[in-house]
Amino acid sequence: MLDLRKPLNWCHASITCRHVDLAFCLSLLTSMHDLRENPNHVRYDAWCGVAHGCTRKLGMKICGFLQKNNNLEEKISSFKERSSKDLLDNSDRDSRFRRTETDFSNLFARDLLPAKNGEEPTMQFLLEVVDILTNYVRKTFDRSTKVLDFHHPHQLLEGMEGFNLELSDQPESLEQILVDCRDTLKYGVRTGHPRFFNQLSTGLDIIGLAGEWLTSTANTNMFTYEIAPVFVLMEQLTLKKMREIIGWPDGEGDGIFSPGGAISNMYSVMTARYKFFPDVKTKGMTAAHRLVLFTSEHSHYSIKKASAALGFGTENLILLSTDERGRVIPADLEAKVIDAKARGCVPMFVNATAGSTVYGAFDPIHEIADIWLICDTFSWRAKGAWGGGLLMSRKHRHKLSGVERANSVTWNPHKMMGVPLQCSAILVRERGVLSGCNSMCAGYLFQPDKQYDVSYDTGDKAIQCGRHVDIFKFWLMWKAKGTIGFEHHIDKCLDLSHYLYTKIRDREGYQMVFEGEPQHTNVCFWYLPPGIRDMPDGQERRDRLHKVAPKIKALMMESGTTMVGYQPQGDKVNFFRMVISNPAATRSDIDFLTDEIERLGHDL
Amino acid sequence: MLDLRKPLNWCHASITCRHVDLAFCLSLLTSMHDLRENPNHVRYDAWCGVAHGCTRKLGMKICGFLQKNNNLEEKISSFKERSSKDLLDNSDRDSRFRRTETDFSNLFARDLLPAKNGEEPTMQFLLEVVDILTNYVRKTFDRSTKVLDFHHPHQLLEGMEGFNLELSDQPESLEQILVDCRDTLKYGVRTGHPRFFNQLSTGLDIIGLAGEWLTSTANTNMFTYEIAPVFVLMEQLTLKKMREIIGWPDGEGDGIFSPGGAISNMYSVMTARYKFFPDVKTKGMTAAHRLVLFTSEHSHYSIKKASAALGFGTENLILLSTDERGRVIPADLEAKVIDAKARGCVPMFVNATAGSTVYGAFDPIHEIADIWLICDTFSWRAKGAWGGGLLMSRKHRHKLSGVERANSVTWNPHKMMGVPLQCSAILVRERGVLSGCNSMCAGYLFQPDKQYDVSYDTGDKAIQCGRHVDIFKFWLMWKAKGTIGFEHHIDKCLDLSHYLYTKIRDREGYQMVFEGEPQHTNVCFWYLPPGIRDMPDGQERRDRLHKVAPKIKALMMESGTTMVGYQPQGDKVNFFRMVISNPAATRSDIDFLTDEIERLGHDL
Repeated sequence: MLDLRKPLNWCHASITCRHVDLAFCLSLLTSMHDLRENPNHVRYDAWCGVAHGCTRKLGMKICGFLQKNNNLEEKISSFKERSSKDLLDNSDRDSRFRRTETDFSNLFARDLLPAKNGEEPTMQFLLEVVDILTNYVRKTFDRSTKVLDFHHPHQLLEGMEGFNLELSDQPESLEQILVDCRDTLKYGVRTGHPRFFNQLSTGLDIIGLAGEWLTSTANTNMFTYEIAPVFVLMEQLTLKKMREIIGWPDGEGDGIFSPGGAISNMYSVMTARYKFFPDVKTKGMTAAHRLVLFTSEHSHYSIKKASAALGFGTENLILLSTDERGRVIPADLEAKVIDAKARGCVPMFVNATAGSTVYGAFDPIHEIADIWLICDTFSWRAKGAWGGGLLMSRKHRHKLSGVERANSVTWNPHKMMGVPLQCSAILVRERGVLSGCNSMCAGYLFQPDKQYDVSYDTGDKAIQCGRHVDIFKFWLMWKAKGTIGFEHHIDKCLDLSHYLYTKIRDREGYQMVFEGEPQHTNVCFWYLPPGIRDMPDGQERRDRLHKVAPKIKALMMESGTTMVGYQPQGDKVNFFRMVISNPAATRSDIDFLTDEIERLGHDL
Repeated sequence: MLDLRKPLNWCHASITCRHVDLAFCLSLLTSMHDLRENPNHVRYDAWCGVAHGCTRKLGMKICGFLQKNNNLEEKISSFKERSSKDLLDNSDRDSRFRRTETDFSNLFARDLLPAKNGEEPTMQFLLEVVDILTNYVRKTFDRSTKVLDFHHPHQLLEGMEGFNLELSDQPESLEQILVDCRDTLKYGVRTGHPRFFNQLSTGLDIIGLAGEWLTSTANTNMFTYEIAPVFVLMEQLTLKKMREIIGWPDGEGDGIFSPGGAISNMYSVMTARYKFFPDVKTKGMTAAHRLVLFTSEHSHYSIKKASAALGFGTENLILLSTDERGRVIPADLEAKVIDAKARGCVPMFVNATAGSTVYGAFDPIHEIADIWLICDTFSWRAKGAWGGGLLMSRKHRHKLSGVERANSVTWNPHKMMGVPLQCSAILVRERGVLSGCNSMCAGYLFQPDKQYDVSYDTGDKAIQCGRHVDIFKFWLMWKAKGTIGFEHHIDKCLDLSHYLYTKIRDREGYQMVFEGEPQHTNVCFWYLPPGIRDMPDGQERRDRLHKVAPKIKALMMESGTTMVGYQPQGDKVNFFRMVISNPAATRSDIDFLTDEIERLGHDL
């Protein structure tokens, strides 16, 4: 490896040292080295505690120094190497390093670009930040590091080892800013860690990360081609590709990237309403009486939020019953549509969930579409925020069979496809509805007399004005992996969940929440500590079982070893919902998870 | 400067060379060096054209190489330095570099972490990306570079010098991905360039950039304390600080960061509706008949979008007349409220714009609040998306006098405060309204039986589920600049706009759109080419003048020298709207802008 780290870090070590007690700091470094080679390995945290015994400012600096040098082996070997060779043999090179040392304690934000002579400190500062970030990336994938270092809110608010969240009138030095960056990561959660299974969005994709870094550097806005020409075209091409994969002829239609699945779902309801009741845009909901919407009782709560926000009212969102596996029962939809019409309501919208949040269930899309057509009602759509990724897999895309019949589809690449958050698309089959619905023709932004083809401006079809560039990371990942790369990732995650399912299905102490192979990577189960296993079924057993998952989860977080979600569902007491979207996870991590659940839960 | 670039770049040069014709590449490098020292300086682009004459793959590689070595002086001196000294004197060091050379043409995304042995290529790849980004940052602040290199959509879609936007089934090599990253930046717009004045959000803040890089690396979600402990607390503290600055007692109240001002404005209307008509949440808009909203005819179109989306209807948004300076006329509000009530409508909401998009006008907040109270109507609020930043300035905050009387305030740090996009806050005076309005109690996410104080979970007060971390960059900038740093930035921008205003106010060929000193940094003016100046007032003159700004803007973009916005407003033909939020801009850039307008517009 081209180890730029080595001279860089040593240089920074000496920078820090200069401002505290140099001798003390160096002796500390030596001691740490000794300790490392000593079998009685004392942790960095302990040393940081000692350092913290110094005055606040001094202690903070030493802590910062220690954190920087936490990856001891590397740093020490760098130190030794440079001491024994470079510092002696190559005084010319070294003097160049020494000459260019950056003392961040005397530098402030105002010294960076665009300040005069700001280029050097800017580059030094950014490289130092990158050093912090690449170390974090390295550790994220290292199973010997914790997933998190849990603290309660009041602990963090009180200030951890000099990590002070309060804002003040006066600026802090760049040295303090770098310490703050390290602390922010230190007390956060490593969502890319191979043993982080807590959410639908997990993992840290390196290409996606690079894409986000570039996006931030470009710092522009998706609303016009004028200031985001490349990104606007990438969005257009990517959306077309997604529509092709959905199965709409020639990828025709429209769409936009929105700040998450909930907003995409809101778009979906809005476009349906505009398509069938365009007067609502101008006259409000009084122009269309008694519209009702349908969705699964297992569907994501964002449909309910959209009903409230858009003026339908949550009572006009009719929840559909599901089978034991969490899939909408078509007959129930039919009955409820007929009933609603009999009550004088107008069924406007049905949502088919493709991959429900808890069970990972796929509603039977064809049956829903058939009923919807027969009932002579209006728009319907599929929400594949979580399950949409399966469209990329030849093996699993059949679970969304019929999705091409939907009027609109939500598809979140930031979930199953591992794209960094936020990246969610709403795709609409009919061209013109999205812009018809949202267009307000703001003349100061979307001038018709620009020199380029203004149909490329996207702002007037969004409910947003400024819109973050969410496309680039996704486009770059697609380039770098190819469609087959996403397919491979998805197949692998489903294989892993199959592994977990077959492992615990018949294992003592486990009980599945629903029978049969899960459709998505969601594996829902109870862990029963030995003390509960033989209890007779009844309220007491249920009450005890209800407390098991939260207790194990709390212990997990406190030990920082892994994270997995839990929740109750309907009349089912708290159970674990394991989901796998993390590309770093392997069978050994699944084994680790079950071992950990058993270790922490055994005596409950 | 600690020049890590030097060995790194040379190393990469040799990497690229290995895979094309080494001899050709080296001779090209030498030729470029010669050319640089030759007064007849031939541009990089020309060489790239030559290189592109090779086969596509070879040409692409040479182009990539050329781009990387575009900053010739530095690269060549690095080459010379290494050739003459390191390569000869320090063969040991050099062999270390050579040993660790990374050949990206044979590496793919699948070789990066979490792949086995993925750490080295991951670090190399990320450092290479950082090299691209830091070069971009450097050039962004360099006035000798263009603001943009304009191409029409069809040109970019056809593929520029091997830059192919299409996605395919098979993966591309990391070498190609790096070329794509360079090309994406090359064909984009430098929104941080000192001469980019096109939007309300401009500039590239280095601390904010570092904050975004860290945010992407942490890749988490604001919905729970569980997975974003530090960020959730930062958000809470920063919102409180903002409420204190607004002037709410003890900073009490609530708030949330949303994906932009339009969504923040939507929150504002929603919370007002929930506060006075809570039944709308469950029963829909039928539970509250004939609600009307008021806003300035100059206000941002997002208020109109919110009226449409939330089910009020745009016809129930009543536009208020403004004075010549674009400020709402209080008497007009009073008359329209009385009229609406007489028609049986229920005035629910009035929006006071603090810094309108085009004129930068501040509505008279106290007068609006007084009328609103007297008329016994409901919620009212201030939209300071653009003007909110002025609250940080002791000199200018009087323009928002009365803002503390609002029920909610939109404040976009990503505009006047220079925070990278997206960063927008909605602040609500009364605690509980925001969560009351949006809460759906999703049990699988916001479990009440977690081990920590779940009042820190923010998800249930958002209309989003997943929510991007927008707080960190802002928090870090505040730490690094202090409140006084933001104040200084804002005062400086207003000073610059004052400079522009006084410069062109009486200058031949300029005409101001409204009389008097602008309230914000918006300076609105027509440039009149000599051929128009003496024309008699009338339709023909108006028609010609209407075409001047678009034409100058098109020429500006084609020459890539600067960018400024234009638009018509009401019966006023196209005029320039200059806004200054860019911390890199100086008086010389203002002078450059007017010179450029005159140069490009003189003969129109």
